[in-house]
Amino acid sequence: MSLEHNFFDDYSEGAHPRILEALNKSNLTQETGYGEDSFSSEAANFIRDRIKNPNAAVHFVSSGTQANLIILASMMKPYEAVIAAKTAHINVHEAGAIEATGHKVISVDSGDGKIKPEQVLQTVKFHTDEHMVKPKVVFISDATELGTVYTKQELEDLSKVCKENGLYLYLDGARLGSALTSGASDITLPEVSNLVDVFYIGGTKNGALLGEAIVINNPGLQEDFRYHLKQKGALLAKGRILGIEFLELFRDDLYFELASHANQMASQLIEGITNLGYKFLVESPTNQIFPILPNRLIERLKERYGFYVWTEVDAENSGIRLVTSWATPEEAVAKFLSYLKSL
Amino acid sequence: MSLEHNFFDDYSEGAHPRILEALNKSNLTQETGYGEDSFSSEAANFIRDRIKNPNAAVHFVSSGTQANLIILASMMKPYEAVIAAKTAHINVHEAGAIEATGHKVISVDSGDGKIKPEQVLQTVKFHTDEHMVKPKVVFISDATELGTVYTKQELEDLSKVCKENGLYLYLDGARLGSALTSGASDITLPEVSNLVDVFYIGGTKNGALLGEAIVINNPGLQEDFRYHLKQKGALLAKGRILGIEFLELFRDDLYFELASHANQMASQLIEGITNLGYKFLVESPTNQIFPILPNRLIERLKERYGFYVWTEVDAENSGIRLVTSWATPEEAVAKFLSYLKSL
Amino acid sequence: MSLEHNFFDDYSEGAHPRILEALNKSNLTQETGYGEDSFSSEAANFIRDRIKNPNAAVHFVSSGTQANLIILASMMKPYEAVIAAKTAHINVHEAGAIEATGHKVISVDSGDGKIKPEQVLQTVKFHTDEHMVKPKVVFISDATELGTVYTKQELEDLSKVCKENGLYLYLDGARLGSALTSGASDITLPEVSNLVDVFYIGGTKNGALLGEAIVINNPGLQEDFRYHLKQKGALLAKGRILGIEFLELFRDDLYFELASHANQMASQLIEGITNLGYKFLVESPTNQIFPILPNRLIERLKERYGFYVWTEVDAENSGIRLVTSWATPEEAVAKFLSYLKSL
Amino acid sequence: MSLEHNFFDDYSEGAHPRILEALNKSNLTQETGYGEDSFSSEAANFIRDRIKNPNAAVHFVSSGTQANLIILASMMKPYEAVIAAKTAHINVHEAGAIEATGHKVISVDSGDGKIKPEQVLQTVKFHTDEHMVKPKVVFISDATELGTVYTKQELEDLSKVCKENGLYLYLDGARLGSALTSGASDITLPEVSNLVDVFYIGGTKNGALLGEAIVINNPGLQEDFRYHLKQKGALLAKGRILGIEFLELFRDDLYFELASHANQMASQLIEGITNLGYKFLVESPTNQIFPILPNRLIERLKERYGFYVWTEVDAENSGIRLVTSWATPEEAVAKFLSYLKSL
Repeated sequence: MSLEHNFFDDYSEGAHPRILEALNKSNLTQETGYGEDSFSSEAANFIRDRIKNPNAAVHFVSSGTQANLIILASMMKPYEAVIAAKTAHINVHEAGAIEATGHKVISVDSGDGKIKPEQVLQTVKFHTDEHMVKPKVVFISDATELGTVYTKQELEDLSKVCKENGLYLYLDGARLGSALTSGASDITLPEVSNLVDVFYIGGTKNGALLGEAIVINNPGLQEDFRYHLKQKGALLAKGRILGIEFLELFRDDLYFELASHANQMASQLIEGITNLGYKFLVESPTNQIFPILPNRLIERLKERYGFYVWTEVDAENSGIRLVTSWATPEEAVAKFLSYLKSL
Repeated sequence: MSLEHNFFDDYSEGAHPRILEALNKSNLTQETGYGEDSFSSEAANFIRDRIKNPNAAVHFVSSGTQANLIILASMMKPYEAVIAAKTAHINVHEAGAIEATGHKVISVDSGDGKIKPEQVLQTVKFHTDEHMVKPKVVFISDATELGTVYTKQELEDLSKVCKENGLYLYLDGARLGSALTSGASDITLPEVSNLVDVFYIGGTKNGALLGEAIVINNPGLQEDFRYHLKQKGALLAKGRILGIEFLELFRDDLYFELASHANQMASQLIEGITNLGYKFLVESPTNQIFPILPNRLIERLKERYGFYVWTEVDAENSGIRLVTSWATPEEAVAKFLSYLKSL
Repeated sequence: MSLEHNFFDDYSEGAHPRILEALNKSNLTQETGYGEDSFSSEAANFIRDRIKNPNAAVHFVSSGTQANLIILASMMKPYEAVIAAKTAHINVHEAGAIEATGHKVISVDSGDGKIKPEQVLQTVKFHTDEHMVKPKVVFISDATELGTVYTKQELEDLSKVCKENGLYLYLDGARLGSALTSGASDITLPEVSNLVDVFYIGGTKNGALLGEAIVINNPGLQEDFRYHLKQKGALLAKGRILGIEFLELFRDDLYFELASHANQMASQLIEGITNLGYKFLVESPTNQIFPILPNRLIERLKERYGFYVWTEVDAENSGIRLVTSWATPEEAVAKFLSYLKSL
Repeated sequence: MSLEHNFFDDYSEGAHPRILEALNKSNLTQETGYGEDSFSSEAANFIRDRIKNPNAAVHFVSSGTQANLIILASMMKPYEAVIAAKTAHINVHEAGAIEATGHKVISVDSGDGKIKPEQVLQTVKFHTDEHMVKPKVVFISDATELGTVYTKQELEDLSKVCKENGLYLYLDGARLGSALTSGASDITLPEVSNLVDVFYIGGTKNGALLGEAIVINNPGLQEDFRYHLKQKGALLAKGRILGIEFLELFRDDLYFELASHANQMASQLIEGITNLGYKFLVESPTNQIFPILPNRLIERLKERYGFYVWTEVDAENSGIRLVTSWATPEEAVAKFLSYLKSL
């Protein structure tokens, strides 16, 4: 690519240098395979500590789709189904991974990517008998696919409606770091953890080479989870890699610092673009933003920068998506804004 | 572990230093996600070149079980089944991964881990109508779970019986490097490739951090393979990692040198153990060997070395498994033999 | 039930007497099992003749959900999906049967239960790459769940858009008899058959004890279909029963006469209810009708008649569903109307 | 067929006349659909009474394969597996129906079609960790595919080993009538029922048109079973048919009388064939017998009678299978024997 910089996504670069260092340093130590190494064990302890749940089960896997399909398959009986926003990753962007494990994804409309308690309730009420699937899990992502985040109150309300209706609440945290360190967030990691049955902490999109940390809080869902991992091809012989990465991310505040940086870069973009008089498709406080720009200007921008055109707004304007990451240089943001201004 | 060395398996250590270097060097380059990066593309070219099949489709995944389940699911209609040795990885050690995709594994007895053409033929003849599954794929591993390897003639015969009976031949090459560089091998990589419809080249057990390279020779099996990868959670956002690794392994002869080293270390163990008067469960020319030792001696060995006791031979003797790898130091082998001698 | 009559559905009674007679008459003849009997063979011939496709494959199964799940599973690769109306039986009332075979049902909104060509086209365009499922089949029912029917033009347009986009068209004909004999129909059985790749002719809801006749017109979808039937538990040891039933239904015009009677009974209900000044939720020309009645009147009706309350219309009125069948006595309809008038 | 009589199987004829009568008599009664009719309810009561378990859940389905796949899918988590004899119907003759629901069938060798407690124990011990499936159900048939039956002691021992190892015991009773009324049986229906978690009582092979009665004794396995039935296409709209049949079979001793007749016909065949000096492949006390006859004589027999040649015994002799049923006329047996004698 001969672009100056791309804002396509938050996985365009490799890993944070500290992670590569840790891989280097530990390289020749002999370890037990398949996730039973000392690094994974230590990383799990750090995470349990961070979320303030000493009884959580922690497992590491390679990708978000893998996490979603294994977790959901482990939570449901054959006739049970998962409720998700129409825009949810599992409903649109996982090539039918959940259905391939035998389960229906019941989609509910959502303008901002978030599910409301009333929608959960309506869905439960609609499914009255054995001619229909039985809703069992509510799937949410935080941040959502639209970059929005759940407030503490919203999560508490969802958690409550789930508990009252015998549903599990599962949170896809591919961008959880970005959600928690965003200016819009009024909730902490232990608080989020405490409100959900299962969630995963995304590594791939926040400085790891690869890897997501699955956290199972509900003791009833912890049993035999490694069987599910193995059956779906998720147990890595050198599981140590995942352990080493998360150890580095959670040994201190690195995980949050990286997410915070990505958010700051997005904020600078928002500020700059707003100052130039442009609006946004949706108000996103995280590392994905959706400015609306004139099409002719978008064409010019494309000559130097990588990004996706998200949606047509009207005949002359479109919404684009800009994504920042732990690795986005402040300088790249500044240059982008200055180029935009010059057009 | 306070052991002097462990011979548990060939994935106890991290990656070959050149691979870590390559990850470091490429770390901040921005790349397209999900396996469409320039490294993966270049690595695929090197592999196509090595196997002398410019039309092969090459894909990279994270683990052997993942490779097996995705490949087999992509090859069969719902009522079709795969024939495998009773000891095959997919039949015993993948937690029912193949069945979880809906397909029966038809197992045939095998003393040495290899399948014979007659067994394929018998199995096909036994399955006469729609009350039974329809055999469609023959699954073999090379090297096998018992460390044995297929000769050129054996592979040609299997390939012939498969073609004559409308079956696909699929080879699990988790330890293909070790098989091809073993003294018992009389076949080359392009020759193996030419005889099978699909195979994978194992990286995890031969110097990579993680990763297996799937090679699809049969054009009829290439279409839409990335859908299968995505659906099973195998497309890594930073697919570049897998590309970078295989690029390094196949840029020159590194892949074969690493396997060769593992085999040499195993040879030295065989020679030393034979000289001490011990026999073996099976004659393995690769990096897994199975010496028979007195139980009291095994107990003493365990104090300093890691390995698995494989099977009881009689009241006083057992077979153990020793595995060497690209990272096994010659010194560790020498020390092990000298300690064994001293007991 | 101490009700005068129930209009719950079209499967409240047993079979048309001629079918029972045929079962009786053939009872002690010895026949080959699993659908390979002479009755099934003869019935298949009658059906091929009726639809004017001598090359169609015809199979008999026990239920509509069974037909749907087997047919759809036989038509799709693991990552392929079926497009259906939001109200479609497979989307709502089959307890996730399609997803349990591994496939996503992509639902599209539909006020009248019918799918429009533009919706098919939009759905195809939305699914751009391997991160999403690949639409492969369009599922329609005729009559629909709302009692509406497709016109010839509508079916031709759907068939065209499917062919142009490499999609199969599959028609669920649980109530095909009612659709074809309805006043609103301008299409014949051979014409319907000619426009779809696969369809089934419903027996259960039109005079049979049980049974649906699957017709596969597309030769590419005929191969090995009996394997799918067996694997899903659909091959009956005494498959003769299904053959005997369809032989009786298609030996002459019995199938159409029965459907026609059901439609006439519905027409009489519509006329009578309209004359009393009531309106309908949807204009249905088949054997399911949806009158809107005052709630206090519905309560009174319930004392003597069985039917489902379908939906609330406003604070004082609801839509109910009345279903007639081949067995509905004209007298029951007259009495119902006269009772309704008296309230 | 121009044969005098066929002994191919026990489903060559239709239903016992009393069943057809009952269908006739009840034909126009209006009933609730999908198995919630009064006949099914009454039949379930009769069965609960017969097995002396007022808390059993009873459901009716159309075929044995359907019963097996639904029951087993309802009993296991995704990584759990079922142990069965190598010759078991689910392992050989159901086209991979169990695997299609995602579960491995672990087969154990068995000369007589029966599983021994030691085999269960060995299988459990072999499966040590999450790299392998986890055995959860033991599947047996009574009578077995070879016509043999379990003694009370054998069933008690199996039940014990299952309970001690956290396994469910499931009995496929496609020919349970024949097993219980055989001379070799020392166990009653309530005793069998009491020793297993789930079983089904075969109707199709014992006088019904179609249908098997599933009995779930284990309360932990009863919940939501109708969801499984619906999802797999097993809920018949006119479920009344199945209820009516089983009501007739269990209203008095009809079920046992029919099975007893089939056994007597087989006994007469055994006695006659033995008197002529022939031996048997296996000693079967039920309605499937396996005499060994000279090949030249088998050819002559085939001119007048239908039966399967089961296996080659030596160059000049083969084992054949003769199956009798509730409908086998005593005269047909006598004629067969007299013809055999004449050859």
